[in-house]
Amino acid sequence: MLKKERMNRILSIAPQKQLLITDPCALFYLLGEWFYPGERFLGLIIHENEKPVLIINSLFHAGEDDQIEMVYYSDTDRINEILKKYIHEDEALGVDKIMPARFLIPMIKEKLASSFELGSEAVDFTRAVKDEEEIALMRKSSEINDQAMAQFKGLIHEGVTEKEAASKIMDIYLSLGAEGFSFEPIVAFGKNAADPHHMPDDTVVKEGDAVLFDVGCRYHGYCSDMTRTFFYKKGPSKEAENVYNLVRRANEEAEKMLKPGIPFCEVDKKARDIITAGGYGEYFTHRLGHFIGVEDHEYGDVSLANTRKSEAGNIHSIEPGIYCPEVLGCRIEDLVLITEDGYEVLNKYPHDIEIID
Amino acid sequence: MLKKERMNRILSIAPQKQLLITDPCALFYLLGEWFYPGERFLGLIIHENEKPVLIINSLFHAGEDDQIEMVYYSDTDRINEILKKYIHEDEALGVDKIMPARFLIPMIKEKLASSFELGSEAVDFTRAVKDEEEIALMRKSSEINDQAMAQFKGLIHEGVTEKEAASKIMDIYLSLGAEGFSFEPIVAFGKNAADPHHMPDDTVVKEGDAVLFDVGCRYHGYCSDMTRTFFYKKGPSKEAENVYNLVRRANEEAEKMLKPGIPFCEVDKKARDIITAGGYGEYFTHRLGHFIGVEDHEYGDVSLANTRKSEAGNIHSIEPGIYCPEVLGCRIEDLVLITEDGYEVLNKYPHDIEIID
Repeated sequence: MLKKERMNRILSIAPQKQLLITDPCALFYLLGEWFYPGERFLGLIIHENEKPVLIINSLFHAGEDDQIEMVYYSDTDRINEILKKYIHEDEALGVDKIMPARFLIPMIKEKLASSFELGSEAVDFTRAVKDEEEIALMRKSSEINDQAMAQFKGLIHEGVTEKEAASKIMDIYLSLGAEGFSFEPIVAFGKNAADPHHMPDDTVVKEGDAVLFDVGCRYHGYCSDMTRTFFYKKGPSKEAENVYNLVRRANEEAEKMLKPGIPFCEVDKKARDIITAGGYGEYFTHRLGHFIGVEDHEYGDVSLANTRKSEAGNIHSIEPGIYCPEVLGCRIEDLVLITEDGYEVLNKYPHDIEIID
Repeated sequence: MLKKERMNRILSIAPQKQLLITDPCALFYLLGEWFYPGERFLGLIIHENEKPVLIINSLFHAGEDDQIEMVYYSDTDRINEILKKYIHEDEALGVDKIMPARFLIPMIKEKLASSFELGSEAVDFTRAVKDEEEIALMRKSSEINDQAMAQFKGLIHEGVTEKEAASKIMDIYLSLGAEGFSFEPIVAFGKNAADPHHMPDDTVVKEGDAVLFDVGCRYHGYCSDMTRTFFYKKGPSKEAENVYNLVRRANEEAEKMLKPGIPFCEVDKKARDIITAGGYGEYFTHRLGHFIGVEDHEYGDVSLANTRKSEAGNIHSIEPGIYCPEVLGCRIEDLVLITEDGYEVLNKYPHDIEIID
């Protein structure tokens, strides 16, 4: 089950010689298997020229693999006693950015390594460049999301609430072959679309409302994520139409400039400049995009602060939005893949204004 | 929004004078509001005789409250610079057990406090004793779960898969007034019930199968959690019936002994002894119960290792099970509240063997 090439790519760029990987997403990336250890410890120790060691509670099952040493423990064992056998105490240890304090503080107090460092950058940089297997799954996940979006419109009818519409989304994803959500879907009607993190509530749809779906599914573990803003029963007001077209242009112009070597901050700036020139700069309150893969938000973003450059294999969102509190909101989001000589938009669902009847 | 009495209970038992609370569940417990900060920092600093400080990204909204100092920051701010203003550097700091390394390691390296300790025990002990407001919500959450269980049986029919049945559970919960799941539901048919952590898959139900539902919902943030094991079309085999009755007896005898002052290990032992005397001791592979509240698994458990004593206000599961791999599995789980002079079983759904037709 070990994806050895991915592990070697990580070790080749890690500043530490040993890493302790506990993030379930990073473990899935390396082992092709999901573990849900809950509050129990589950970790993979990787070290140059040594067999990786998976430390796992005996309540859980892992596939057999000769490439990995499996160490099972029980609820009565002390984790540090087991870790000590495999962590080199005279070397720095890189740990995941999400490793919880309940494991980390005891490890530090008992000096299991010479120092403790954030070690997941190497994992994150590796994960940010998708291999062929991953690209195929990401394409399929977004293809399902496109098909699903066409069906989500059908959930909107007289009297429906955001929560009711949201409660049907899972069934549509499952019927299309997805495993579930990549994140809790956002369904926002009217003014609610002005909150980029709105959670579906009991708001009932009204004629003329914007109907925003920010949704994604998982396919073989890989996430999709797309936003479209429709209108219910009648077209947008003059202002809403103007906002929609600005957001659309920001999305499309930013996408057009994508290719390896372009700094992410320039892509964000492109979209932001368009929205600012249109008079809504202060209402575009978040970064233009985030990386995505096994997680819906992965390390790496498309923001003014990120001066790193695009690489072939990067997959991220392009999601400009305009949010005028208590008035209106609009977001158009696609996932894009950076290719050797340009880009591929993974979402084919159109950007045109659509009215739901 | 601040629940001041809960905060004061925490500070009165914390070994540290200052705590940094980042766990969304603990924040909900203290503030009555859910925050979903994702990868962004969000934390509440509490300190005896000082106004609590909520440090929050300006992308998110928090209700106004004079009892709290609100500190908004933006994505370009350095978190440690802000934390420094509010953390006393000459005192130990207690942090949440789930605080991620990406915040903790930089805080340690920049010496924001004199030492860093696991500080959430005080929060956890406080949360383990529910107040009246919480007890009312927990009762209602389990009442919905009882009503829902009666409907889940209706999901099982010729040709249905575990995944299909599981996909309908959310709608039933929502229609009964719940907000969603307290955890991903387990639906297990036949031999799959022998895996206590089974995830619903494409297995189709067969005549004579056990049909196990381990399910829970949320009501105003508070979790329910119950397991029932039904049989499809015909009653259990002789062995399955024997196993069922053992598990039922273990559940009911353990519940009967509950009252303040009983060590949790004795409750576990009671159930385990019954199952062992019945010849299935080695197949009861997990602890008897876990605490529950704002989270489906909270600090505290009913296990042989826990010598602490029950207190009025504790709410936990009682969930004996027998798991014979590749043969059969059975679990019967209720939530129980410890009262001043005994106990109250929050789940009223009966324990009798039921056949789904």
